[in-house]
Amino acid sequence: MRLAELGEFGLIDRIKKNVAASPSVLLGIGDDAAALVPAPECVTLITCDMLLESVHFDLSFCDPESLGRKSLSVNLSDLAAMGAHPRQFLLGIALGKEVPIEFMDRFMAGVLEQAERFGATLVGGDTCASKGGIAISITALGEQRPELVLKRSGARPGDLICLSGTVGDAAAGLVALRQGVREGFLVSRQLDPTPRVAAGVALAEGGLATAMIDVSDGVLGDLGHIREMSGVGARLELAKLPLSDEYRAACGDDPYALALSGGEDYELLFCIAPGKRGEVEALFAKLALRLSVIGEITATPEVKLVTPGGGVYAPGHGGFDHFG
Amino acid sequence: MRLAELGEFGLIDRIKKNVAASPSVLLGIGDDAAALVPAPECVTLITCDMLLESVHFDLSFCDPESLGRKSLSVNLSDLAAMGAHPRQFLLGIALGKEVPIEFMDRFMAGVLEQAERFGATLVGGDTCASKGGIAISITALGEQRPELVLKRSGARPGDLICLSGTVGDAAAGLVALRQGVREGFLVSRQLDPTPRVAAGVALAEGGLATAMIDVSDGVLGDLGHIREMSGVGARLELAKLPLSDEYRAACGDDPYALALSGGEDYELLFCIAPGKRGEVEALFAKLALRLSVIGEITATPEVKLVTPGGGVYAPGHGGFDHFG
Repeated sequence: MRLAELGEFGLIDRIKKNVAASPSVLLGIGDDAAALVPAPECVTLITCDMLLESVHFDLSFCDPESLGRKSLSVNLSDLAAMGAHPRQFLLGIALGKEVPIEFMDRFMAGVLEQAERFGATLVGGDTCASKGGIAISITALGEQRPELVLKRSGARPGDLICLSGTVGDAAAGLVALRQGVREGFLVSRQLDPTPRVAAGVALAEGGLATAMIDVSDGVLGDLGHIREMSGVGARLELAKLPLSDEYRAACGDDPYALALSGGEDYELLFCIAPGKRGEVEALFAKLALRLSVIGEITATPEVKLVTPGGGVYAPGHGGFDHFG
Repeated sequence: MRLAELGEFGLIDRIKKNVAASPSVLLGIGDDAAALVPAPECVTLITCDMLLESVHFDLSFCDPESLGRKSLSVNLSDLAAMGAHPRQFLLGIALGKEVPIEFMDRFMAGVLEQAERFGATLVGGDTCASKGGIAISITALGEQRPELVLKRSGARPGDLICLSGTVGDAAAGLVALRQGVREGFLVSRQLDPTPRVAAGVALAEGGLATAMIDVSDGVLGDLGHIREMSGVGARLELAKLPLSDEYRAACGDDPYALALSGGEDYELLFCIAPGKRGEVEALFAKLALRLSVIGEITATPEVKLVTPGGGVYAPGHGGFDHFG
């Protein structure tokens, strides 16, 4: 069956019946707007990301379930970077009338699987016909106490710069996909990233970090946002960049280029006072998540990249710019 | 200058500097997510609408300022239909690298003009490059006390069915645009609708309505949503449909077809107990907004359309379906 046969309201009903109730939702799908119940003493964290076919994803590379999971994950990652608990989300999707309903069923299964895993409830959105490719827009909401929210602006000279997980994998995975590879660790890091929600929330609630961002544009680009908002510089030791074995095998002569400038790893890049290092290490051990201290925040507003031999590395470019 | 020269982050900075602060916004544009301060004892109403080039708008028909205003208006209209005060919104926009920055400046001027008029603050969003046409996604947030929120499900047999303003204008305006007309009342109703925010809030806060929806899909389609959610039927007197003189002059032999099934008027369709009629009339007089009682809610789950001569009118179709 195609969407044209099911119709817009048939599609909405089909989606709605798979959505569970939540105490934070007074009214969900079905009215002109959803009604959400804010938790006492919390602020609402809200973020929005668009994913466009042929720009952000290629249907010859990914299955609909992964696309559904990733569409939500990139938003959950933004909430994680603020230290927020995910609560609700809205999904806008535009797609052609001739798309088989099976595609939407599988896409929604991925979206709702990830939503359940991270405690987010679908409360509304928009469906419409597209004359071009598929366009997805998700707005995700989370909550946290205002004094615990982590911003980009809190980094101070002397802070240690930390990363969760490994970096460069997603960019290397995209290179591999373009070369015809369809599976493996790097490909799955590109197509199905894991938002670091538990780590982000624990860093915020433990008062452990001074600034945080998620690695969506690349380590250098995202560190640049922290530097700019905090008015600081940074010194990175490239030997300490967390690189997976698969990335090392795939990256060629320069192991740093993609690890520094490749986006979409959705790891957390955060700064901590040196005295918190033990606590943060204990937290990451508990979460079974790799932690790397890759450098430190400096007072001068420049970034210095130190090679393993002690030299200075000059990167090709600083991060992903959609219009660049 | 083109967007490619300004870059993604240059564009974001350019937008950000025109956004005023608001007490409901703890953190606006510039972090991974915005942080919003909910009002005490209120629920958050949230809605999302996508507007796609060649589907929802045609740049040969409209100027960028009108497109900006309408993009926000369709979302504010959803908040109005719940009886909510607009508070904040997020804007996602995908557009080609070759788009002149002047287009974005004029589009944003329209968005922010409408935002200021209705008290909504831009708090975040997403900008990205599109390989197809322009895609716009706005998520708008409002607030209201939960016991005052108006739903689609509250209509009861005997309730009077009311409309604000006039209907059919926007659909007739689209017909005129396609025939080459570029100005006038009908065209402006299509390109630059006014969300009925003050009326929606006053109906909710006065406890005057039992159910409400905005006319985005057409009177019959939107009344159908109220009927379905309330488990009721309706009897409409076509002679009482509020039609503008300009619409009457343009509609040809059948004045009811577009007035019943044409969407995008963004008027409020609502139900009231008969005893509230005087109060509602006084409210609309104060707002200088036309009010029409067009029929009543019935117990049987059908809709009956009565012609001026007392006959039964059979409509061509019931409302807009994106995949129909």
